[in-house]
Amino acid sequence: MNDRRSIIYFSLLHYLTVALERVRGFRDIYPEDSEPRKRIFEVSEKAAEVFGFRKIEMPSVEHMDLYRIKSGDELVSQCFNFLDKGGRQITLTPEATPTVVRMLTSRKDIPRPVRWYSFQKYWRYEEPQAGRQREFYQFNGDIFGPSSAEVDAEVIGLAAFILNGLGLKGHYRILINDRYIMEYILRENGIKDIAKAFTIIDKFKKTPSDQFSLDIEELGMPKDRIGHFCEMLENLTPIEQAEAVIQGVIHHNGSDSQIQRFVRLSKILPAYSPGTFFLDLSTVRGLAYYTGVVFEAFDVEGKFRSILGGGRYDNLAELYSGQKIPAVGFGMGDAILEMLLKHKGLFAYTKKEQKFYVATPDMAYYTPAVILANEIRSNGIPAHLNINDRNMGMQIKEANKEGATDLIVLGKQEFEAGNLTWKKLGSGEQVSITYDSFIDILRSRGFGEADFPEV
Amino acid sequence: MNDRRSIIYFSLLHYLTVALERVRGFRDIYPEDSEPRKRIFEVSEKAAEVFGFRKIEMPSVEHMDLYRIKSGDELVSQCFNFLDKGGRQITLTPEATPTVVRMLTSRKDIPRPVRWYSFQKYWRYEEPQAGRQREFYQFNGDIFGPSSAEVDAEVIGLAAFILNGLGLKGHYRILINDRYIMEYILRENGIKDIAKAFTIIDKFKKTPSDQFSLDIEELGMPKDRIGHFCEMLENLTPIEQAEAVIQGVIHHNGSDSQIQRFVRLSKILPAYSPGTFFLDLSTVRGLAYYTGVVFEAFDVEGKFRSILGGGRYDNLAELYSGQKIPAVGFGMGDAILEMLLKHKGLFAYTKKEQKFYVATPDMAYYTPAVILANEIRSNGIPAHLNINDRNMGMQIKEANKEGATDLIVLGKQEFEAGNLTWKKLGSGEQVSITYDSFIDILRSRGFGEADFPEV
Repeated sequence: MNDRRSIIYFSLLHYLTVALERVRGFRDIYPEDSEPRKRIFEVSEKAAEVFGFRKIEMPSVEHMDLYRIKSGDELVSQCFNFLDKGGRQITLTPEATPTVVRMLTSRKDIPRPVRWYSFQKYWRYEEPQAGRQREFYQFNGDIFGPSSAEVDAEVIGLAAFILNGLGLKGHYRILINDRYIMEYILRENGIKDIAKAFTIIDKFKKTPSDQFSLDIEELGMPKDRIGHFCEMLENLTPIEQAEAVIQGVIHHNGSDSQIQRFVRLSKILPAYSPGTFFLDLSTVRGLAYYTGVVFEAFDVEGKFRSILGGGRYDNLAELYSGQKIPAVGFGMGDAILEMLLKHKGLFAYTKKEQKFYVATPDMAYYTPAVILANEIRSNGIPAHLNINDRNMGMQIKEANKEGATDLIVLGKQEFEAGNLTWKKLGSGEQVSITYDSFIDILRSRGFGEADFPEV
Repeated sequence: MNDRRSIIYFSLLHYLTVALERVRGFRDIYPEDSEPRKRIFEVSEKAAEVFGFRKIEMPSVEHMDLYRIKSGDELVSQCFNFLDKGGRQITLTPEATPTVVRMLTSRKDIPRPVRWYSFQKYWRYEEPQAGRQREFYQFNGDIFGPSSAEVDAEVIGLAAFILNGLGLKGHYRILINDRYIMEYILRENGIKDIAKAFTIIDKFKKTPSDQFSLDIEELGMPKDRIGHFCEMLENLTPIEQAEAVIQGVIHHNGSDSQIQRFVRLSKILPAYSPGTFFLDLSTVRGLAYYTGVVFEAFDVEGKFRSILGGGRYDNLAELYSGQKIPAVGFGMGDAILEMLLKHKGLFAYTKKEQKFYVATPDMAYYTPAVILANEIRSNGIPAHLNINDRNMGMQIKEANKEGATDLIVLGKQEFEAGNLTWKKLGSGEQVSITYDSFIDILRSRGFGEADFPEV
């Protein structure tokens, strides 16, 4: 190869290599993952629907200003934001809530309560790590309108219903707290900058205790109270016993409606899922806009980051639209959930599915095989159809490779007799059956498997 | 208001207004549309699965170069492309195929045939118009590996199976052609620049006939053949009669395997869906990379742009990876489909769904109501639960507003007796039933509605 040519050759190679790379922080999801992932979407959406939540679909691009109003500039650096061809700063949506609130407040005809859910992609320009890609799906569920302990309980109950539906009961905990109660405790302990204190407490579990003590002392908590305060933050209390804990720290709670409300929530929650909910005073959530209950779910082993998180945010709609609309909701990403399901051996469709392979030993009789395969498919059962002119041995080999449970042979002989050969690939049993009887079995089987006729 | 203040006030107003606007060309999808849209996704994905296609999920962001390789710079101006924070040119994905091929060729362990489908969002920076937003969903199905008339038929058959599954049988046609045959016809008529001719023929239906004649004459077709050529392009022939048409224009087709193959395809297709497929010589598809069969679906009334389109593209994988992998596939957007379903009155879940409303006349007995509602939900039936302390009249009003079919009342009286009051909201019939009997009915109902016990 001469020099000129080799330069061109290597440039082209470089060009092709760059072009074929996936963008960093993004993920190609092949069928072995994509198929079990469908269960995450189906279980979550079905759960939302049986709770009476209705689906919305949101744009994946918004004006950057939508997030500035709520989060200031801090979020901007984490967004995939860019100038559109008209010079406006737009961004791939980093989260659901601002768009949900925009959609809600831009129509006046939606009766309350509004129960909405969505499950779509979001993007964050963060350093990729285990369980955190730059692109992810997030389920989001919110109730707008009424504000009560029952509403809070329903949203948190939906979160538990989804995780239980995925088989995770006993493998996760939902940690609950209330910002009103925390503010009360903080003020009683001499702290005035509540927002700052929440930021520090949000990092409690990740901060060395010496450092945490210094940080919280700096905000005004007397040194002699810090030890006890840290103990409180460390305790997990089953939610049934939350009232006793709260009575221990807040003394006039009998007359405070916000505290009464949290106590009521603590009594309702176990009905949604016993043994799942815990009072955790260190759960305060990083985001600034929560106004009441806050919650996060973690795996019991503590191996992963949070599975889902949410809370009450009664002032956000007002910020956008001037309308005061109480709201409570949560978001649940797909990544940690998928990792946890894999870790627990729950990342699979457990049901063994019937699957046909329609073999065609004589390609002159292909069209009746097409009609037969479509009849099976129309009854909701997968049917692979041979698509190459090749011998039966190769077709049966493919049937096994594709995981078929049932083999149908339809060739010249069968066609002329009006028959099919139907073989169970597991046991090797086989029957000869008329075309019409086979169709009858398919159509009458309800939701069960299509099985050989009784003799 | 003084001047200074009013300036600030109006600036703020402007700021908020901009922030709350949806980005142009994007769509907020509320439940009344989002819920019937679910059927588009469910029917398409289920159809793909019963055909043995497996789901993949692809990134929504790719390097711009991935599209340059395939489409040159023409596509670049239609992409939402931007520089990432590392200065690389990336883009929101405008279509599926390049990513599908990238995913396929970047792994060596995937056995052929590969049947893959996906259904996700894409973006095009085009002028928004009816049925064309800047963001849309597209179903994509492809078979890689074997190349035969049977493979082509299966992919086109899947397209018909999806549209039939949505209730559109008889409301659409799939127009079929083969680029090999068209090239043959064009060469026989003196045309050498085949790519250019395809571009012109692709616009045949939108071009005034004088202009079309001039364009095609310029490419070398003798003037006296143009009239006949245009007639050929105008004809729609039921696919069963394709062989006769082809014999009329191509004279030695008995010995040409490519033409034999198309004739075979024309004989298989009606088995997938009789009356659906037509030979249309004006269907050539705009994209440069098709190598064999091409097809597009249109509504019979001709009201809308194409519903779906696809074809065989045997050389694309080689362009990316050096591996020759025959391929055939199609893409189907959500927008035209939704418009057509609405136009035909098919844009709805037709099944009338049972839905419970659990009323709680006494909030002191709320937790048993939570447990009951969750029991109904766990059996797959939606249950609204009252979430406010209010009288029964308001709860029943809400039950009707939410479209509930069944009302359960669980208050002090019912709880103490171990009973429920169960009322059918349509007929007004009601029964008193023990909690346990109700649960038994729920659990034993299979896939039917939960109905009152036989007396």
